Amino acid sequence: MSKERIGFIGLGVMGLPMAGHLLRAGYPLTVYNRTASKTADLASQGARVAKAPSGVAEQSDVVITMVSDSPDVEAVVAGPSGVIEGVRPGSVVIDMSTVAPLLEQRLDELLRGRGATLLDAPVSGGDVGARNATLAIMVGGDRTAFDRVRPILETMGKKLTHCGPAGSGQLTKLCNQILVSVNLLAMCEALLFAHRSGLDPMLVIDAVKEGAAGSWQLANLGPRVARRDFTPGFMIDLMQKDLRLIQENAGASSTPLPAVALVSQLLRSAQAHGGGREGTQGLAKVLEALAGV
Amino acid sequence: MSKERIGFIGLGVMGLPMAGHLLRAGYPLTVYNRTASKTADLASQGARVAKAPSGVAEQSDVVITMVSDSPDVEAVVAGPSGVIEGVRPGSVVIDMSTVAPLLEQRLDELLRGRGATLLDAPVSGGDVGARNATLAIMVGGDRTAFDRVRPILETMGKKLTHCGPAGSGQLTKLCNQILVSVNLLAMCEALLFAHRSGLDPMLVIDAVKEGAAGSWQLANLGPRVARRDFTPGFMIDLMQKDLRLIQENAGASSTPLPAVALVSQLLRSAQAHGGGREGTQGLAKVLEALAGV
Repeated sequence: MSKERIGFIGLGVMGLPMAGHLLRAGYPLTVYNRTASKTADLASQGARVAKAPSGVAEQSDVVITMVSDSPDVEAVVAGPSGVIEGVRPGSVVIDMSTVAPLLEQRLDELLRGRGATLLDAPVSGGDVGARNATLAIMVGGDRTAFDRVRPILETMGKKLTHCGPAGSGQLTKLCNQILVSVNLLAMCEALLFAHRSGLDPMLVIDAVKEGAAGSWQLANLGPRVARRDFTPGFMIDLMQKDLRLIQENAGASSTPLPAVALVSQLLRSAQAHGGGREGTQGLAKVLEALAGV
Repeated sequence: MSKERIGFIGLGVMGLPMAGHLLRAGYPLTVYNRTASKTADLASQGARVAKAPSGVAEQSDVVITMVSDSPDVEAVVAGPSGVIEGVRPGSVVIDMSTVAPLLEQRLDELLRGRGATLLDAPVSGGDVGARNATLAIMVGGDRTAFDRVRPILETMGKKLTHCGPAGSGQLTKLCNQILVSVNLLAMCEALLFAHRSGLDPMLVIDAVKEGAAGSWQLANLGPRVARRDFTPGFMIDLMQKDLRLIQENAGASSTPLPAVALVSQLLRSAQAHGGGREGTQGLAKVLEALAGV
């Protein structure tokens, strides 16, 4: 069976290494990026470069989008010269961005009008996961389409889950971000308490991380706080985007999420102090400022 | 070298299996428990039974206490017929209860007046960790005394950390409980959001638990919430005791801990509804009640 022709739109810090995995796995690849210069590296490895998202869709059986926010996905799929203008009947569009679940349902309907299907497939694992192909991929949409593109997704991730109908991947990603952000707050409060109590934060992390107190946030971002390393991993501005999506969806279903509200307010202070482009562990500095440290 | 003679005071759900490990490791053991009937099992395996904590101390080189709260430790060590009345010069008293750090400093001074030393050595890992000897043990106090009793502690736990001077073990345990309780809240909010979004909570847990959203609380208590199993692991009433200790200590050092405050207020609602003796995962029901689920 010949390999599906893949299109990839959005070659940022996540998309570029993800597209690279597809190319190395032998998939015929056509790419598009708003800033055209970012296509050069993949082109030199054999990727075709299209002039617009519609051109990507014309040459692909499976189109992957990996952009920053809801308006970007909407523009790339449904805007002028968007995917919708070139998409072929029977194609699958996989949106791997983290965006509003309702938008994905709308785009799925739109694509079905052209005989195509949308899968929403946001990821967790950050730029490290993208580079090492160890992403968790949470997929919503048609089950048959999911089974068809599974080998493609396995090229980029190690944990694939079909979560339900269109939008379910995004909703699962939002659950992921509730956990990430509130576990982050737990880590920052614990390390502030440790510091104020005269304890060595690294020693505390080591003492407790394998037990009931353990979390990815503690084990991975705790040492960065202890070392005063606030470079991103994942930026506070992007976490705030996800917390906004969580709160919009929770608001629509009248679901109170008090800890999510708290962490988003505290991160707003980080943004107010110019820390929006720092890593999420910059939340530690907000608590320290509250405590006069 | 002959084995140290060990005394063990407090044979509850934690203390009984911990004392059993010491007996099986061949340590001469003298025990005391307020409810005397709980000593029968260990006595049948060769433990001596004392009539009071002072009697335990008279026959021991190392005295371990494992009781519920600060007043209990104070009574058992410094009260009438307490350890202090029988303690021998050169003895080490190890308090493995979770109690106020300042109390441990006070008891250490008192014992030093008799030529003995206190180590505070609270544990994490619950009744399962006590039975399987997989506890994390966080130790404060004299370093030489810690090195001396290390083989004894290794009989009961798998992760030992010397955290600093007297009280440091308790302070580290409080850091542990900040993480436990706020990660618990993260898990409950994520699963409530999942439920309200029409997702399968077990599927969400499985999709995200190995990545940046992962935590012990999610992996171990998340499935219990999904199964509606609210039996304790660790009871809400006991978690509230620890949250009170955290907030007393944080108050004394003017350290704001907003997420700790939030989770303790929400757990208060669980107690108001008669759930204080349920497992901490009963927090999920408080959020569900807020959401009208």
